[in-house]
Amino acid sequence: MASYIERLNSAIIAKRAPVVVGLDPRKEQLPPGLMESAKSGHSHYSDATATAYERFCFQIIDIVAPLVPAVKPQAAFFEELGPSGSLVLASVIRRAREAGLIVICDAKRGDIGSTAEAYARGYLAGSDRNAAPWSADSLTVNPYLGPDTLQPFVDVAVQREAGLYVLVRTSNPGAAGFQDLIADGQTHYRHVAAAVEQLAQETRGEQTYGAVGAVVGATYPQELAELRAAMPHTHFLIPGYGSQGGTAQDIAAAFDADGLGAIVNSSRGIIFAYNNAKYKDQFAPEQWESAVEAATRDMIADLAEHTPAGALGG
Amino acid sequence: MASYIERLNSAIIAKRAPVVVGLDPRKEQLPPGLMESAKSGHSHYSDATATAYERFCFQIIDIVAPLVPAVKPQAAFFEELGPSGSLVLASVIRRAREAGLIVICDAKRGDIGSTAEAYARGYLAGSDRNAAPWSADSLTVNPYLGPDTLQPFVDVAVQREAGLYVLVRTSNPGAAGFQDLIADGQTHYRHVAAAVEQLAQETRGEQTYGAVGAVVGATYPQELAELRAAMPHTHFLIPGYGSQGGTAQDIAAAFDADGLGAIVNSSRGIIFAYNNAKYKDQFAPEQWESAVEAATRDMIADLAEHTPAGALGG
Repeated sequence: MASYIERLNSAIIAKRAPVVVGLDPRKEQLPPGLMESAKSGHSHYSDATATAYERFCFQIIDIVAPLVPAVKPQAAFFEELGPSGSLVLASVIRRAREAGLIVICDAKRGDIGSTAEAYARGYLAGSDRNAAPWSADSLTVNPYLGPDTLQPFVDVAVQREAGLYVLVRTSNPGAAGFQDLIADGQTHYRHVAAAVEQLAQETRGEQTYGAVGAVVGATYPQELAELRAAMPHTHFLIPGYGSQGGTAQDIAAAFDADGLGAIVNSSRGIIFAYNNAKYKDQFAPEQWESAVEAATRDMIADLAEHTPAGALGG
Repeated sequence: MASYIERLNSAIIAKRAPVVVGLDPRKEQLPPGLMESAKSGHSHYSDATATAYERFCFQIIDIVAPLVPAVKPQAAFFEELGPSGSLVLASVIRRAREAGLIVICDAKRGDIGSTAEAYARGYLAGSDRNAAPWSADSLTVNPYLGPDTLQPFVDVAVQREAGLYVLVRTSNPGAAGFQDLIADGQTHYRHVAAAVEQLAQETRGEQTYGAVGAVVGATYPQELAELRAAMPHTHFLIPGYGSQGGTAQDIAAAFDADGLGAIVNSSRGIIFAYNNAKYKDQFAPEQWESAVEAATRDMIADLAEHTPAGALGG
């Protein structure tokens, strides 16, 4: 098999799209009919919702698998439903991998010692889909507890040819609150970035990028450019495109000259495109799947036009 | 019903013990016979392990419920097993609440906006056990993403009369890595502490302590004393006692004069006491339940002797 980065880069080049579709099912935004049809056969509301989420995500996977390299399920929306949601998260990940997609599980886990290792073993399947019950290719992790707490995640990732994305600069309006505090002349997130870049270097082998990547929000373009320069061996996962306000121009500096080095996420902007002003006139709610496809194609074209991703695949 | 802090303080005073028993099941340390007997009836190893974890945790709950106010399941060890582990986590929490215990779910979640709210809604049942599928009284959360990302957790906690513990100073050897960086003349964790104390103030009503607490490790006694002074309205959850090296003397400064204001966790030191040098001679592996009870009583006595908890219950 191949390392996470080799598998991811191959898929990005094959699809000519550095795009990850976020699977963030939300009850109140599901397309019409999905909840209603899921209700038959379930006495519990949360079980019916879980079934609706599964069908919704399966359909999205079928639509986007030919177009993009990766999907990113957001664990929170599944866990909100309890164990039946956790079961659906696992089944959605498996379905995506069977469809040939790379799966970035967005669970933002973080803990110490053998506890961190337990999370890593549970989520990081890496190259062997059967190596972990939630069989993700990579996982988002939180660095607050300290550099030593990243190591168990790294060890499992390397062993399983899986990947990690450590939170460095997040996309929320209040990210600056703690991440921008300045110590020793550098922002806090730059200290975290230095530790992540070191792990990326240590895990890259012959590749440009290592198994350890960074989450860097699209909503802070200057920080994105600064971090690309400071982290030449770190692959970026970039949330905040579209619904959160980040544009393709904002993201351009995150890529290397080959159009690699970063993967850009859109969640609501794609999966609930039928609800967006841009697609509302074009597609009726019943045509939500066509809206998903149109929004995905539009995002790929937008990145190809305004970022180095246009160079992908020659 | 009553707020989280009212319910917790009543339980601490009734048991005269500021002790929370950590439910951290680990396959390789389970008492003899548990895995073997769970294997019958399961074709999958992880399902058998989940059943063994459930039985183990249920037995511990039965032993400690008369002695301590609270238990703290560590989500990672359940999630490691996949969806069957998640199901057992939910059942363990329900069993503990039926036994009258306060449940602190140690899941260290953290995310932004509606995603943070989804985690909060999934875990924080608070005073109404049926309000959330994982029906915890309180949840540990990670502040890295910014103060704005704590607010959705706080809103759900207040609405459901539940509690939160925000990571401030963790107990791992490398905690200093990022938490001790100095900005504006203060350590990073002091900046987080200031935000948490404000939330504690805003959520305390007539009580001394608010719905928002802090995780502060027992392994850094000086920081514990410093934070108690800086956070007069913040309840402390203190890991690191026992197996990780923190002593009762190290923790003494975390309490107020009434013996309230903090709850101290022991996990391995209690649940796997039959494996500890101190109890090995006294109890055979088959007597692991007696070792759990002895270790729990010893910890309560130790805290009563060496901390203000001796004043509990008059």
